[in-house]
Amino acid sequence: MTRFTAVELIEAKRDGLSLSPDAIEWLIGAYTRDEVPDYQMAAMAMAIVLNGLDDAELSAWTTAMLHSGEVMDFSDIDRPKVDKHSTGGVGDKISIPLAPLVAVCGVAKPMMSGRGLGHTGGTLDKLESIPGFTTALSPDRFREILIEHGLVLAGQSETMVPADRKLYALRDATGTVPSIPLISSSIMSKKLAEGLDALVLDVKTGSGAFMRDVERSRELARTMVGIGNGHGVQTVALITSMEQPLGREVGNASEIRESVEVLRGEGPTDVIELTLALGEVMLELAGIDGGRDRLQTAIDDGSALTKLVEVTIAHGGDPGVLEDTSRLAVAPHEGRITAPAEGYVTRCDALVVGTVATRLGAGRERKEETIDPGVGITLEAKIGDQVGVGETLARVRYRDEGKWEAHQAQLASAWAIGDAPVDPPRLIIDRIS
Amino acid sequence: MTRFTAVELIEAKRDGLSLSPDAIEWLIGAYTRDEVPDYQMAAMAMAIVLNGLDDAELSAWTTAMLHSGEVMDFSDIDRPKVDKHSTGGVGDKISIPLAPLVAVCGVAKPMMSGRGLGHTGGTLDKLESIPGFTTALSPDRFREILIEHGLVLAGQSETMVPADRKLYALRDATGTVPSIPLISSSIMSKKLAEGLDALVLDVKTGSGAFMRDVERSRELARTMVGIGNGHGVQTVALITSMEQPLGREVGNASEIRESVEVLRGEGPTDVIELTLALGEVMLELAGIDGGRDRLQTAIDDGSALTKLVEVTIAHGGDPGVLEDTSRLAVAPHEGRITAPAEGYVTRCDALVVGTVATRLGAGRERKEETIDPGVGITLEAKIGDQVGVGETLARVRYRDEGKWEAHQAQLASAWAIGDAPVDPPRLIIDRIS
Repeated sequence: MTRFTAVELIEAKRDGLSLSPDAIEWLIGAYTRDEVPDYQMAAMAMAIVLNGLDDAELSAWTTAMLHSGEVMDFSDIDRPKVDKHSTGGVGDKISIPLAPLVAVCGVAKPMMSGRGLGHTGGTLDKLESIPGFTTALSPDRFREILIEHGLVLAGQSETMVPADRKLYALRDATGTVPSIPLISSSIMSKKLAEGLDALVLDVKTGSGAFMRDVERSRELARTMVGIGNGHGVQTVALITSMEQPLGREVGNASEIRESVEVLRGEGPTDVIELTLALGEVMLELAGIDGGRDRLQTAIDDGSALTKLVEVTIAHGGDPGVLEDTSRLAVAPHEGRITAPAEGYVTRCDALVVGTVATRLGAGRERKEETIDPGVGITLEAKIGDQVGVGETLARVRYRDEGKWEAHQAQLASAWAIGDAPVDPPRLIIDRIS
Repeated sequence: MTRFTAVELIEAKRDGLSLSPDAIEWLIGAYTRDEVPDYQMAAMAMAIVLNGLDDAELSAWTTAMLHSGEVMDFSDIDRPKVDKHSTGGVGDKISIPLAPLVAVCGVAKPMMSGRGLGHTGGTLDKLESIPGFTTALSPDRFREILIEHGLVLAGQSETMVPADRKLYALRDATGTVPSIPLISSSIMSKKLAEGLDALVLDVKTGSGAFMRDVERSRELARTMVGIGNGHGVQTVALITSMEQPLGREVGNASEIRESVEVLRGEGPTDVIELTLALGEVMLELAGIDGGRDRLQTAIDDGSALTKLVEVTIAHGGDPGVLEDTSRLAVAPHEGRITAPAEGYVTRCDALVVGTVATRLGAGRERKEETIDPGVGITLEAKIGDQVGVGETLARVRYRDEGKWEAHQAQLASAWAIGDAPVDPPRLIIDRIS
């Protein structure tokens, strides 16, 4: 006989009371074992959305989620284990250049990524546009690659954090997604299950981010940093802008191309800047000296790109496409969005660009949809750029004429052009630690 | 393809927006047809508990529930159709003397009652302690008895208000019961399905009531009166005290005995007073002259008791137990609670008395439990009564020695005795119309 019933815990949260750690542990465990039905957890989730969780509850909730499944143990690996997690954005390929870069500098990065959903892309989908690249690894193979290369790029196994998998699907179907405690515990339970020493969070803010408002983004960041540090994992968050897409490329194969450019010392300034900024914090938390100079050296001497090639081979991928990126998938047709007026770009809306990319096949709106790696949008003009009438704002590679026709006007609406020069939005807005 | 999705409606209610009548109609219909799953309705119910429903939403919600099943039509019956509904209390047998009393005066009372659950009793359970009395009637038989006798005492058929049956069970399991809009629409949809001209509500307040706080009781009453009048059914509510049980008897067979006493012009003052007060409002709404005097005459000349005997026969019940109430079931053992001090009874807690009566077998904590009609508590001392040390406060008829041992101390805790004289609580607190 248990000491708790789901109804009494729901009633307590409904009435604004705090749940004890034991009660939370029981609830999450019973839900994972299908002993508490979805309808009770749905009522609880809505009560949490509206009444919140305090710090002690949140810590207990995250711990219970974390221990609902397997927890990685890499304590036998000497290198400092550090990962980076982004709350998701449009054109956010940062993990791909960042992972080999910090691995070359001495970090072990056991990266467990997600897939794209809605208007944001997923690192696993991007990596899979490298022919042969597999992100589904056995635990043994995951560990082997991590030890040999200092990084591994995989999806989270089904045995890890099963409570989150169930709860996330339920929240999606019950209007209970936008809750800082539920978002934070979902993200942090998955990251804490990776057996890390430290974690850097890239919390996006603005049009293309989950949190559009910078204060809500700061609150999310502070909440996650608190959970991480409370669980003995040094955690720092950068609040970064997602008003416009990151870089010039939005799409799967094309973002691999742009990532390779960055590791060649080329590529767009914002992608380089954010990669180095996040890398710097990772080295700092890892206790590795040298900072940004050391990262820059790993780009300049080609060692980071070599690392990406090596780890691609370890994952079964064709390294040839990294040496000759023109061999990456490209959809058959190209369309253009042109400037209706001359002036300065004042808006290049990340949500609109991400949504149209998804609708054209570069992302998925439901989990079961497949992705077309060759579909992509190349942004020729971003905020602050000067354009003339008829100049190209974006080139779009698509497969389906009907979809392009249907979404062309929507894509064009992403841009606004004004008379006066404007500065691009500040990329790195704050650091929370 | 529908114009709505459950998730968008849940999100709107979560964010404090109003739902359109069309949206509500769709949601309740789809839920009744099992097209919206329980987990979505559970999230919606919690959002309603915490964010409420405005008047327009509440009206639409009640209409949608009402039309989820069969709606009675008694427009071919000339008499004014008037019912009384109590929000539930301990010792509340009022329907049993009231129904024949108003029927004798010219009202048609198509009474559809519920069963007891938790600490409150149910009229159907009480009636079934009359041997042979059946409350499960076909629609045709229901109508026949109503036409012939001016009253019928039955349970609501499965075909009426199925949305409420589903939603009530879900709310019970998801901590979403205590919401004035959800309680009001549940009660009123069932009452509006009875095809009434008018309705009198007995909204209980105090320890043994669903709403302990008088202001919340007034709010519930105002909400239900608003719904009734908005649906063209003249509705009046009395707010009445449920600090202590009503009458002297708490139990099924013993409440039938007390009801018969009232119709014989005997019985406790509070039961007589509330029966007459509710009856007076029913006659007023029915447009029948004579008021309290007419009701008193129906008691004095024995016509109301004769009516109860006739309708008992129509329901298949043994009228002999009404003529000789000593033939009603009595549990084999009798225990007593005695006064630990001399003085005045200052408390005789309805919730405690109701809970112990249920635990001893007079009620049920779960729907599937059966009831022992002979189990009951007779209150010898109520608020305001003077008692000496060792004097009897209650006599308890029980079947199971172990249960009596287990609950004796709890029952004793229902009473408090003080030094100074106190007045009994005012029975009828307010009228809302």
